[in-house]
This record gives sequence, C-alpha cells and structure tokens, in this order.
Amino acid sequence: MSIEKIKIEEKLSLFDDYWNPRIIGELNNQHVKIVKLKGEFVWHKHDKEDEMFLVISGTLKIEFRDKVVELKPNEFIIVPRGVEHKPVAEEEVSVMLFEPKTTLNTGDAKSELTRENLEKI
Amino acid sequence: MSIEKIKIEEKLSLFDDYWNPRIIGELNNQHVKIVKLKGEFVWHKHDKEDEMFLVISGTLKIEFRDKVVELKPNEFIIVPRGVEHKPVAEEEVSVMLFEPKTTLNTGDAKSELTRENLEKI
Repeated sequence: MSIEKIKIEEKLSLFDDYWNPRIIGELNNQHVKIVKLKGEFVWHKHDKEDEMFLVISGTLKIEFRDKVVELKPNEFIIVPRGVEHKPVAEEEVSVMLFEPKTTLNTGDAKSELTRENLEKI
Repeated sequence: MSIEKIKIEEKLSLFDDYWNPRIIGELNNQHVKIVKLKGEFVWHKHDKEDEMFLVISGTLKIEFRDKVVELKPNEFIIVPRGVEHKPVAEEEVSVMLFEPKTTLNTGDAKSELTRENLEKI
C-alpha cells in the first residue's frame, strides 16, 4: 500500500457538481469524503451512522427540527445517528465528511439525490 | 444529547502543551482529537488502528522507514495500522487526528510520552 499525502484543495479542484460526495480516504471502516453543496438538501437521518461535517470553505447551515446551526471554515458538527437534519447552502460550500463506509448520503430518504456508488478520487 | 458546533481554533486556544492530545469529538467509536506538536516524537506503530493526521497550522513531517512526507495546512495523511512512523515538527504544528477510541498516542512504544487518559475539551 502506498502512503501518500492528500491535499484537500487539489481534490476539490477535480469536480464541480453538487451533492455528489467523493471518497478521498479510508481508515478503520470509515470514509473521508469531500462534497460541494449549493441549495437545500432533503430532510433525512442515518439510523446506524454518526456523521461529521467539517466546513472547508463557505458557510453551511444544518437545520435540525429544533434549531439551525451555521458552520464556517474550520468548524465542524457531529450529527448523531437517528437525528433528522437538512443541510442548506445559500452559496457554494465545500465540506469534508467523516463517516462509516456504509453511510448513504440521503440516509433514510432515498430519492434522485441518492448517490449509491461514490467515486474515489 | 446536545448537538453543538465545534470551532477548531477555539479548542486549540485552550491549551499550550505539546504531544498531549485532547478529545474534541466522538463518533462511530472513533475520536476526533487535536494536538500541538513541537520537536521529535518516538518511532511507533499502532497494531490495530489506522490513524489520520490533518494539519491545521504549521508544517508536519512524518518520517517512515523509507521516506518522509511533509504536510501543510489542509493536507492529511492516513497511516495504516502496522506501519512505523515518527512525527517531527521543527516549529509548532497543530494537528487534528481521527482514529479509533482505543488508539494510544505512542502505539507500541510506551514511554514517558504516553498519554493514557485524554482530556475532553
């Protein structure tokens, strides 16, 4: 196995589409992903996976049923399994995700936004 | 459980000592840690845990037996289980770590640098 460093900015420069996470690392049955977001996602939850959102650039709002949390670069939040949430990006946001390999982007809310087989870049 | 955002810079401002990781998040039996490094650590490996180093500020060198990788902010590396490595920081470096909760900082090389019970901040 080759052990190489990953430059997050370089990986982000490789794609332009929204709501389509790419895998940029794997460890301990977890994936490290990056994704660009713009607009509103769907309400969903993950029944078996906690999910971490770390903002790289832009401002990400995560709506919960009882509050909204706003995240700027170098800020993160951990959404525990079972908690409904909806990411909202008024302008483009780049995010790093850290979650189990089993995690589906739309959780329990499968739709045309669901991405089943993610690209590794 | 309260779901709050974490500001990495704010957490880093809470301590000044080196080689003493703090826990700032927990998900899926993994810990998110931050640590400040300066100087040379010890050669070690983790037999059962892959370990991710994400540089927040400064320049981190990670020595392997066959090469050296230099990491700058927003760059990371995943060190697979079983691979010997030695972090070296010529100047102060702040790093975020992702690794299983079972991970001991010095791995198989217990010494006075070993930190058994990490503070949660």
